[in-house]
Amino acid sequence: MPKESTLLRDGKIVRSEDPLNLEMPFETLDGFITPTKSFYVRTHFPIPKIDKSKWRLRVEGEVERPFETNYDELINLESEKIPVTLECAGNQRNFLEPKVKGVQWELGAVGTAEWTGVPLSILLDRAGVKPRAREVILEGADHGKLEDPKSPAGEVKFARSISLERARKNVLLAYKMNDVDLPAEHGFPVRAIVPGWYAVASIKWLQCIIVTNEPFNGYYQTLDYAFWKRRGDNAELVPISEMQIKAEIARPSEGETVPANSNVRVHGTAWTGDGAIKKVEISSDDGATWNEAKLLGESKPNTWRLWEFSWRTPNRPGKATLIARATDSKGRTQPMERDPDRGTYMINHLLPITVEVR
Amino acid sequence: MPKESTLLRDGKIVRSEDPLNLEMPFETLDGFITPTKSFYVRTHFPIPKIDKSKWRLRVEGEVERPFETNYDELINLESEKIPVTLECAGNQRNFLEPKVKGVQWELGAVGTAEWTGVPLSILLDRAGVKPRAREVILEGADHGKLEDPKSPAGEVKFARSISLERARKNVLLAYKMNDVDLPAEHGFPVRAIVPGWYAVASIKWLQCIIVTNEPFNGYYQTLDYAFWKRRGDNAELVPISEMQIKAEIARPSEGETVPANSNVRVHGTAWTGDGAIKKVEISSDDGATWNEAKLLGESKPNTWRLWEFSWRTPNRPGKATLIARATDSKGRTQPMERDPDRGTYMINHLLPITVEVR
Repeated sequence: MPKESTLLRDGKIVRSEDPLNLEMPFETLDGFITPTKSFYVRTHFPIPKIDKSKWRLRVEGEVERPFETNYDELINLESEKIPVTLECAGNQRNFLEPKVKGVQWELGAVGTAEWTGVPLSILLDRAGVKPRAREVILEGADHGKLEDPKSPAGEVKFARSISLERARKNVLLAYKMNDVDLPAEHGFPVRAIVPGWYAVASIKWLQCIIVTNEPFNGYYQTLDYAFWKRRGDNAELVPISEMQIKAEIARPSEGETVPANSNVRVHGTAWTGDGAIKKVEISSDDGATWNEAKLLGESKPNTWRLWEFSWRTPNRPGKATLIARATDSKGRTQPMERDPDRGTYMINHLLPITVEVR
Repeated sequence: MPKESTLLRDGKIVRSEDPLNLEMPFETLDGFITPTKSFYVRTHFPIPKIDKSKWRLRVEGEVERPFETNYDELINLESEKIPVTLECAGNQRNFLEPKVKGVQWELGAVGTAEWTGVPLSILLDRAGVKPRAREVILEGADHGKLEDPKSPAGEVKFARSISLERARKNVLLAYKMNDVDLPAEHGFPVRAIVPGWYAVASIKWLQCIIVTNEPFNGYYQTLDYAFWKRRGDNAELVPISEMQIKAEIARPSEGETVPANSNVRVHGTAWTGDGAIKKVEISSDDGATWNEAKLLGESKPNTWRLWEFSWRTPNRPGKATLIARATDSKGRTQPMERDPDRGTYMINHLLPITVEVR
């Protein structure tokens, strides 16, 4: 359970008030779907106050027929309901050594919800994408000035782009989260959902879709939420995209006390970007040996998989460590060490937790 | 003349020792060609020590026939000799208010030399560029680690890209500067020259030419030497490219004393990116009225133009200001105010100098 000193709001940890950043205490994980009230909240600017009856969504740029639609029109289009896991690209940042700037997330900037909305491809088809188009910019109504000395002098809007191919694949313009209208902090009235990608791509308070011929180089695309990728002798700044494979232990949690010489249920979730979780293993000897956990439920695309493991605790009191490690259908697994070129994002190296055996 | 306290080396102002950054005292401007010993020096890392007999230049990437050439082969290819003005993208940074980070250049991080070398297009043709190629990365031998917290963790090489179209236009692989072998600090044995662009594109110590299908996003392309360009409600980070139109006054220099009620020769240079200087005007009344200066010599592409103006100084002793303003063949002129989205680069707003009338 969260430490007594931690400021909570509706059961979530307050990481910052302005902008509002709330984290799910990950030890409260209880089922495949994260209740909306427990779902982490990440914002960069004040939450836009949007009147549903006045909200408009524009589709413009390299299209034959730019248009504007409204909420009633949108919800009457063909819709889909899919479960999708969203993780903040900075989840687990608090565990980085040395400490880095940014919201100090522990394990809970991740959650799975059922999203109901209109496939983006329907709107793109209505607009008629021109042949030379390469990318689709998703722009939110949230905006403000930045303090980073490398940032633009004026205001920026929160915006990200994805390739046209990715945009046509399975991106949803969601207006319901777990079967009710999106709450304001989750992007009311409409949020994009880009399955398999870090949640920064899933633009909240969506108001504009811009098709372009050239790569988009906005602040949150090119400078923030980007990492360094090695290319030969050099490195290139690349926008964060697919989620990296990761397993997280919900219980026991860091510092929790467990009885000696007993069977203790270890449980958590694991997820990956474009693929399925095939295996979760647990080590209680600092990675010397690994034992497979049991995957629960069924595998669904773009969502996490719950798992559990029956751990025989040591005979004697003292400290013990647990590490979870996931492997996916593409053979990817988690690295032992942190790659510093990832900056403050994409944190999926193996993370031991320490428990107290009594 | 430079202040007595200014550290000079070979007549140049030492802006930093490590890396080596040297500026021409702009008041020493004396002719269309800048002598090599007066030419400003900009480096980012230790100057590579290159043995001409061991130097190789690779052409690779999206080409049919990647190859490697050496110095003797290169200098035996068809060559051209052209005068080109190079300006550091941070020239005049010292005049920005509030003060910003970066080398504190005044007026002298600019110069014109005659460059002898091989057109890049000859090497591209020899390699056979594939149809989908879009950009050409020019990579130098200079490299090191960066201190910027947003930089890659490992080493980077100094590299920039230009569009394939730009690469084929008039880029030179220069091995002579003002008719002698390039000095080490100017890129020995071979430096790219990209006419009309800020000098950051003119990669020194060239060792690799990489043709690519995708935009290059290296540190010095995307993060450093980039500026914010407004696009609708948003801003995009764009690599610095074409030089902005600018006139600079060489004499009288800031703080210089001139006789009252006399004709004083005001002189300097003016340059632009892709175009020709059509007019330089001088104001001695804070921009209320402007008088045309005389353009000297003939207009040559991609170089500055010298100019002079006979100024009738005020009758009475006191302070006076002078402002020079250039206009080019495309009708572009200098802005009154600094655009803060340009960050610490592309400084070409009108810059008054103050002189003492006695």
